[in-house]
Amino acid sequence: MIVLGIDPGTAATGYGVIAGDGPTRVQLIECGVIRTRARDPLPQRLRELHEGVQELIERHRPDVLACEDVFYAKNVRTTVVLGHARGVILLAGAQRGLDIHEFPPAEIKKAVAGTGAATKEQVQFMLTRLLRLKSVPQPSDAADGVAAALAYLMGARVPKLEAGRARVPNPR
Amino acid sequence: MIVLGIDPGTAATGYGVIAGDGPTRVQLIECGVIRTRARDPLPQRLRELHEGVQELIERHRPDVLACEDVFYAKNVRTTVVLGHARGVILLAGAQRGLDIHEFPPAEIKKAVAGTGAATKEQVQFMLTRLLRLKSVPQPSDAADGVAAALAYLMGARVPKLEAGRARVPNPR
Repeated sequence: MIVLGIDPGTAATGYGVIAGDGPTRVQLIECGVIRTRARDPLPQRLRELHEGVQELIERHRPDVLACEDVFYAKNVRTTVVLGHARGVILLAGAQRGLDIHEFPPAEIKKAVAGTGAATKEQVQFMLTRLLRLKSVPQPSDAADGVAAALAYLMGARVPKLEAGRARVPNPR
Repeated sequence: MIVLGIDPGTAATGYGVIAGDGPTRVQLIECGVIRTRARDPLPQRLRELHEGVQELIERHRPDVLACEDVFYAKNVRTTVVLGHARGVILLAGAQRGLDIHEFPPAEIKKAVAGTGAATKEQVQFMLTRLLRLKSVPQPSDAADGVAAALAYLMGARVPKLEAGRARVPNPR
């Protein structure tokens, strides 16, 4: 099974591609960052991001898209722009029929490092251990994308209290 | 000139297509609503919305996409999901190389009805007058899409205080 993990960002979207058939047999295939220029118009940046994700899907043919699910950025405008970015990422997955999973940051930390309160350093340490890497994936956005993919393979699930609801709500 | 106006929504996205070559020579070509089912997964709904906008662009070959720009919905989750929807709408326009303009609701009201504080009824009355319609476009989401398109042709511009910035900010 191939999992594409994505950490959406407004300027830098991190990604990681992991092959695995369970928590203990995982291998990092590629990780990196899709960057867009802050001075470019938003529609153009969204097109570049969408094309970047499409290109990753074409190249690696993942079965699953695991996307970090952040609802509350530091301010409302950032949150909304992040929503635009997530929109085109989820679209790219839906257009290729991927199995799409969205995990809140705490679930990713819990699946990878045992607790939703894990620090960034703990998560990066565990990533390095579990994937038998010589060093932490760089930059940290890429590591966050890897963590999202690994969380899926480590059995991350949406929180129990939310089990009856989609993680991204569907308000009428 | 053909203008496609869009009022993004989480369940219903209104649109209007107007032909015109200035404030006084405008004609409504089509209006309506793209609906998605609230019970469907968000990625699927985004794909349907993206395909719906693509189909409108294919059919009408607009020069301009005028999109209502709402940053603050009633709650943060709704705002974020709206961001996802706007993301795939702007993407569809960018993929076809349209000239894309985003207007806050108050600018649309001001361009169409003379004041940013105009009521929905005032805007609908002016729409009907300016486009020489026998009745208000229905449902109201469709009328909001028509208003966005008409606002562009009536010379709506982003607020002066924001002139140096993109309406949708590009935070780093």
